[in-house]
Amino acid sequence: MKPELADMAMRLGAGQLWEPGGPPASLAVVAVPPDAVPGVVAEVLDHDDAEYVTDAASVKAGLARQVGDRVTNVGRYVGGHPMAGRELSGPSAALPDLFEDRPWVLCPDERTQQQAMARVLTMIRLIGAVPMTMTATDHDTAVALVSHSPHIVAALMAAQFVHVSDHDVRLAGPGVTDVTRIAGGNPQLWTEIVTSNARAVRAVLTGVRTDLDRVLKALESPATNHHVLYDVLRSGVAGRARLPGKHGVTRAELATVIVAVGDRPGQLAHLFADVSAAGINVEDVRIEHSPGQPVGLVELDVRSNVEDDLTLALGERGWRIHG
Amino acid sequence: MKPELADMAMRLGAGQLWEPGGPPASLAVVAVPPDAVPGVVAEVLDHDDAEYVTDAASVKAGLARQVGDRVTNVGRYVGGHPMAGRELSGPSAALPDLFEDRPWVLCPDERTQQQAMARVLTMIRLIGAVPMTMTATDHDTAVALVSHSPHIVAALMAAQFVHVSDHDVRLAGPGVTDVTRIAGGNPQLWTEIVTSNARAVRAVLTGVRTDLDRVLKALESPATNHHVLYDVLRSGVAGRARLPGKHGVTRAELATVIVAVGDRPGQLAHLFADVSAAGINVEDVRIEHSPGQPVGLVELDVRSNVEDDLTLALGERGWRIHG
Repeated sequence: MKPELADMAMRLGAGQLWEPGGPPASLAVVAVPPDAVPGVVAEVLDHDDAEYVTDAASVKAGLARQVGDRVTNVGRYVGGHPMAGRELSGPSAALPDLFEDRPWVLCPDERTQQQAMARVLTMIRLIGAVPMTMTATDHDTAVALVSHSPHIVAALMAAQFVHVSDHDVRLAGPGVTDVTRIAGGNPQLWTEIVTSNARAVRAVLTGVRTDLDRVLKALESPATNHHVLYDVLRSGVAGRARLPGKHGVTRAELATVIVAVGDRPGQLAHLFADVSAAGINVEDVRIEHSPGQPVGLVELDVRSNVEDDLTLALGERGWRIHG
Repeated sequence: MKPELADMAMRLGAGQLWEPGGPPASLAVVAVPPDAVPGVVAEVLDHDDAEYVTDAASVKAGLARQVGDRVTNVGRYVGGHPMAGRELSGPSAALPDLFEDRPWVLCPDERTQQQAMARVLTMIRLIGAVPMTMTATDHDTAVALVSHSPHIVAALMAAQFVHVSDHDVRLAGPGVTDVTRIAGGNPQLWTEIVTSNARAVRAVLTGVRTDLDRVLKALESPATNHHVLYDVLRSGVAGRARLPGKHGVTRAELATVIVAVGDRPGQLAHLFADVSAAGINVEDVRIEHSPGQPVGLVELDVRSNVEDDLTLALGERGWRIHG
């Protein structure tokens, strides 16, 4: 990081600069472009610069493989992705509530140590985000749909303004400003992101093109193709309605299921896989664990109406439920 | 309008309900879907329900033709389009500052009466919007680019969420929420709008498809096609940067050129055509005119640095400049 940016971050309250060779940090958050993540994570772990490591890159499956190839103590790393950001970067773009109530995805796998998860969960909770666990592959499919493809679509629309007259763009209002806002993001970073998740993004954009072709065909003879345009626009309304608002669940609607988890590699990944197989969304998660103890407690917050289902499903799969 | 909606609008301060057969309103603003505009405008003029009429539809050239075909006193009508709106409709969606500093396009033609323009300009100024004049065709080209095509693009993206799992859309953040916000608009209304402006919308969306095809092709072998993705994303940044912010010109940067205009059909249209031919943007316009007087004064506000150019250009074309 440039010294002047580090200085600005510190003045804004980001804490103290860690000096190379100093005592290990309790958790390193590697926030670099996706291509650079495996190298930096490996460096931090190899040099013991931090006890545990997470990252913030928006593609997870490929990274997990690359980190695993490079380091032996991969259990100290857990992939993460905060679902919040701005089209601006650097400390001057910091917002105090950027992460508040936003999902922060974690992708533990069968090698992840409980303490790595516990450290990351503590940090996530401190800044007000909501942890969510899923497999790296599920994550990549989901973000292709709700983040990477929308970014491309916004850029495709904005690109049409490059070669038109000032007079034409002068009529632009809040609508098109919203549609194209994220197109202002760093093109080098987004090229890396989209490249790392190319297959999933391509699947979504192929769907966009199919619908776009229907629209273009209909616009050739619009008088007789109202129904085609209406159909696409109505699907837009229906799809839009499926997006969540601000993280919508109040604490009152939640119940907590507490599960005893042995401190062995793979236990957390198995637990979250079993929760997922039961078709239940975890709204929040905490891990109670003291290093050296053989068993930790994982607290899963779920909507009250699925509490019994979850208790039953986990019991059937051999998990020990507390409380 | 449904009586309960009219009641709500009145309670919110929208004024009094006009009763059929009552004294003519000084200005009727016909705010109905585009297909219904010509019929309603003709009815208002034929019944003398109002002295002058404007509308708020987002497509103008076709409407001007249709209104002209239906009424003899078309000079009492001037087409308008407020460049502001919400994805919600009805009086409960009203916002006090919806029009503030937003462009309100007027498309006078060679038949438009000065008094019709003056009445509409007074209303526009009362609600804080900024009048802009352009030809109906120029208007339609511009809104295809900055309004109608972005609406379709937002709908195309949102439509991809219809058939995916809750788990996948749960990660949606503010970015995709912005990209798809306007896709929530009334699909019947937008079908009409897009249909009425099909040719211009098709031209823009064809550009979108060309770029989308480049992206899809690049995503087949992303490792060797970074440059294609980067190029599209960088064009997105460049296009995004061309959109205006909040109406940007302060009063201090403006100069006023006052032009004497004879009260004859076509004078206003000629004046605005001459201003446009000189390549000068009019930031604001007022008309001082008393009915029955042979000459009105049109005040054109332009950026200070083009004041002399405008004075010269209009003088050369035979206009009488005041002050």
